[in-house]
Amino acid sequence: MSDSPHRYDEAARAAVYRVIRERRDVRSFLPTPVAPETLARILQCAHAAPSVGLSQPWRFLHITRLDLRQKIHALVQQERLRTADALGHRREEFLRLKVEGILECAELLVVALVQGGTREIFGRRTLAEMDLASVACAIQNLWLAARAEGVGVGWVSLFDPQALAELLHFPPDARPIAVLCVGNVAEFDPAPRLLLDRWRQPRALEELLFENGWPEQAR
Amino acid sequence: MSDSPHRYDEAARAAVYRVIRERRDVRSFLPTPVAPETLARILQCAHAAPSVGLSQPWRFLHITRLDLRQKIHALVQQERLRTADALGHRREEFLRLKVEGILECAELLVVALVQGGTREIFGRRTLAEMDLASVACAIQNLWLAARAEGVGVGWVSLFDPQALAELLHFPPDARPIAVLCVGNVAEFDPAPRLLLDRWRQPRALEELLFENGWPEQAR
Repeated sequence: MSDSPHRYDEAARAAVYRVIRERRDVRSFLPTPVAPETLARILQCAHAAPSVGLSQPWRFLHITRLDLRQKIHALVQQERLRTADALGHRREEFLRLKVEGILECAELLVVALVQGGTREIFGRRTLAEMDLASVACAIQNLWLAARAEGVGVGWVSLFDPQALAELLHFPPDARPIAVLCVGNVAEFDPAPRLLLDRWRQPRALEELLFENGWPEQAR
Repeated sequence: MSDSPHRYDEAARAAVYRVIRERRDVRSFLPTPVAPETLARILQCAHAAPSVGLSQPWRFLHITRLDLRQKIHALVQQERLRTADALGHRREEFLRLKVEGILECAELLVVALVQGGTREIFGRRTLAEMDLASVACAIQNLWLAARAEGVGVGWVSLFDPQALAELLHFPPDARPIAVLCVGNVAEFDPAPRLLLDRWRQPRALEELLFENGWPEQAR
């Protein structure tokens, strides 16, 4: 079985595998600035993502006003408490977790999904949620590029999307799906934070990989 | 502004930017095999994706039976025609596009989302669709790793999810979100296929990047 002539050389492949392995969801940041060119480069990587029907359903809002950052932080705090209450017996354990670094991170982004509604049909007639998948791919690209730059990114999804949309004057067909904290870090965690914090034990790939159909014992 | 000490060296950063830039949605494949180790490596990259609350809501089904591959192809053909009809005046233009390589690609995967329902609260109490976002990040990881290996991947979302779920014996809380064609290619397109095919003109990042709120003229 011969290798593809389009295969990257060993060092380049190693870099790709490394960045995928070392990307982390970051919640603790240093107060040092991130260069505007670095932010621009990682945003270009987001914009290079695949999108269903080439629809590019993403919008990026760069939050540079301190009052807005504080209001976003307050929205996330509200939802954090509501989530804690909904968690029941794990409430206190959840509240001890650090789940966001909105006030500390160098740069704050809000990522929006513009829903195609019935206008966008290609690739999403039966799977309308493909537009969200495209935006998620864009965020993953940004996340990986940032890691290569040594910059941490945390995806915060603890907010009321309606309230955040109103705060940032979203049009009716758009909604926020991520608050991204972007900034320098003292160190990148050696493993996912929620594993280190013993929130949850991840499963091995082998348990989640099936052949030709869902096995009866896993249904 | 000093660089992060965690920044990768120039060659490694270049590899990360290159793979993000060169990844393509592939619909034309060579019939040559992909090594099982390569498939295993790119699946591990998918499994290294972030997931909301460390929930790992992805499942991967490796389709190795020819009859199943043919049935999946038939489902996609059905939806392709329904999409064409729904597109109205662009029907014929759409039907001329090559939108999938299910019968030609070396390996076929179906990716499923296991919906947390009300069980998974962390990070998705108000944004239940975060589980789908996690699976999309996993697919993007796989896509990038495959490109570094010189292997093409096409994400097909033209199918009736209910019919595909039934074919592969999905449990009620799971649904398919992608048919992934994985295989060798004669060449990677220099730009997105739908741009080369003049299906749609993509927009520049600058048009989709706002500061501190949605601008009035873009609402």
